[in-house]
Amino acid sequence: MKFAIMAGGQGTRFWPLSRERRPKQFLAIAGTRTMLQETVCRLSPLARPDDVYVVCGRQYVELVRDQLPDLGPEQLVVEPVPRNTAPCIGLAALHLRRMVGDSVMAVLPADHSIGRVEEFHAVLEQAAKLAEQGWMVTFGIEPTFPATGYGYIQRAEQIGEAKGRRSFKVARFAEKPRLEQAAEFLASGEYYWNSGMFVWTVGTIMEQFRQHMPELHEILLEIDADWDNAEKREELFSRAPRVSIDFGVMEKAERVATIPCALAWNDVGNWRAVEDLLCEDERGIAANTRYVQWESRDCLAHSASGKLVALVGVQDLIVVETPDVVLVCRKDKSEDVKQIVEELRRNGPAEYL
Amino acid sequence: MKFAIMAGGQGTRFWPLSRERRPKQFLAIAGTRTMLQETVCRLSPLARPDDVYVVCGRQYVELVRDQLPDLGPEQLVVEPVPRNTAPCIGLAALHLRRMVGDSVMAVLPADHSIGRVEEFHAVLEQAAKLAEQGWMVTFGIEPTFPATGYGYIQRAEQIGEAKGRRSFKVARFAEKPRLEQAAEFLASGEYYWNSGMFVWTVGTIMEQFRQHMPELHEILLEIDADWDNAEKREELFSRAPRVSIDFGVMEKAERVATIPCALAWNDVGNWRAVEDLLCEDERGIAANTRYVQWESRDCLAHSASGKLVALVGVQDLIVVETPDVVLVCRKDKSEDVKQIVEELRRNGPAEYL
Repeated sequence: MKFAIMAGGQGTRFWPLSRERRPKQFLAIAGTRTMLQETVCRLSPLARPDDVYVVCGRQYVELVRDQLPDLGPEQLVVEPVPRNTAPCIGLAALHLRRMVGDSVMAVLPADHSIGRVEEFHAVLEQAAKLAEQGWMVTFGIEPTFPATGYGYIQRAEQIGEAKGRRSFKVARFAEKPRLEQAAEFLASGEYYWNSGMFVWTVGTIMEQFRQHMPELHEILLEIDADWDNAEKREELFSRAPRVSIDFGVMEKAERVATIPCALAWNDVGNWRAVEDLLCEDERGIAANTRYVQWESRDCLAHSASGKLVALVGVQDLIVVETPDVVLVCRKDKSEDVKQIVEELRRNGPAEYL
Repeated sequence: MKFAIMAGGQGTRFWPLSRERRPKQFLAIAGTRTMLQETVCRLSPLARPDDVYVVCGRQYVELVRDQLPDLGPEQLVVEPVPRNTAPCIGLAALHLRRMVGDSVMAVLPADHSIGRVEEFHAVLEQAAKLAEQGWMVTFGIEPTFPATGYGYIQRAEQIGEAKGRRSFKVARFAEKPRLEQAAEFLASGEYYWNSGMFVWTVGTIMEQFRQHMPELHEILLEIDADWDNAEKREELFSRAPRVSIDFGVMEKAERVATIPCALAWNDVGNWRAVEDLLCEDERGIAANTRYVQWESRDCLAHSASGKLVALVGVQDLIVVETPDVVLVCRKDKSEDVKQIVEELRRNGPAEYL
């Protein structure tokens, strides 16, 4: 099994810690290692060092090399221009086919957190077996609350079982639901969170591109035919459609499976999610730094420089300090941090982007 | 008229900007000049440079000299040890008597803000005339809301008028009231805020010490008798009672006057008071630094280093950033900042005190 780690994300929801030049996957959000480093580390010992490939845009190549100094040059796949996940995964599949032939390929985002690593490895191994039978395998993350921020996977009939872990054919993918619908999903017991992690063989995904995204498939074949021509590759890749793998392939494919699992998975989608990764005190306060409080509770504090954070009479706040910004955000508005970034894009100053 | 500026305060309510080694009067809370510098500047042109005296403890002598480089050594009165306001004013009176004889003496805290400087000068001049007639004159700050954080002065019969400004005998001093009582004070029209600024002659205040604080008066006479003996002065001053001028003299004295006035006065008692000194935007946000907001209002932001402050979905907060601390405090809890300081005193780390 080979691992393609997708490190091209450009999210704004971790501003001000994340910046255009250093998005979330290159940050140590809740520990001492960056999320990319964590993503690679947690594959050990399942993956040997040269089983790991990282896919990212040009602007992040230097960051990837800095953070993963042992990664060989042939383990880095560079997207010439950013084009959503389907073209990106297509490029990674081509790269793998040239490097190792038609192997099993796990696609893993570089900016998720997984608490239960041994379980994760067991599910990956089970997924690899299904992939070898031609399945496109998703991780069916068992929902722990009616999340409205994730897409869901509905299971259909059972297709297998190994070591007590069942696998199912997928009935359908559901977009991020409203709260009411999310509650119904949870109550039904048939729905799982779609984590964006996939396991298939290179041959399977290429065949799926041919069936469901023929335009992209044609571009990939042309790139493959003149692999070492960087200029032509950029020209071709620029014409690839900006489509996600979910929309372009998964929702249309037939032979899609899911393995329900409890991985303590967290996509760390915004600041609020970080509190689940940190230890809270008895007042619900979580911090990566020293803090002191008076009549405060349920806050998250992050200081990039290790400042003392003092909280007086406040609750449900996120406080983030970086070398040039102090952010104070109501917890249930943490998605709106991107609005600040939008405002800075519109009216500046650009130095804070 | 001579001016004794009291710069010995050691408040904790402006933590983390104020620290044990640099209390509020030595900080630029809402402008570019420190409050001590503002206090001296606003006396011009009423006072000539050598009419101004600064009283402070030993630990602040260097700060005073740094911030007021033109102050002559004979214009600095050093309290050997801290002993509330009555002994401190006594020492200043002795100093003035030796320097200039029995002059009019204005006592002014170094850490208040006054918006209407010309009116302030006019009241000082009117107060000086009353002082020359033996009155101890207070400033009767016209209350603009039922404050519970100030002491009040109740007026009795009118004793004079000059340029439309009336003066009254004082009926009594009232301690900080509860809200209900404060509302009654406001409704009566007879009560004023006690600003802690006083005007009298050196002879008057010394006579008052003799009558109402004979023990302190005796100590002052002994200090005066051996003025240049620093060791003896410290030993004597250490025995002075820790009593405020209000409690020790003003509340007991007979010939006390007040001049009602509207000075846009503010004792800048805590962070919340700072918003009155800064310009607010249309959403009620006041800041000494660049800020950007989304669905936020009525916040105060202070960054010692000029960081960008970003507010998302919050209201009624005070955000303060210093080189080693980030404070987030609910506005109506700004008095509780001192609880954080208490906590740091008890459990450390002391580096933040």
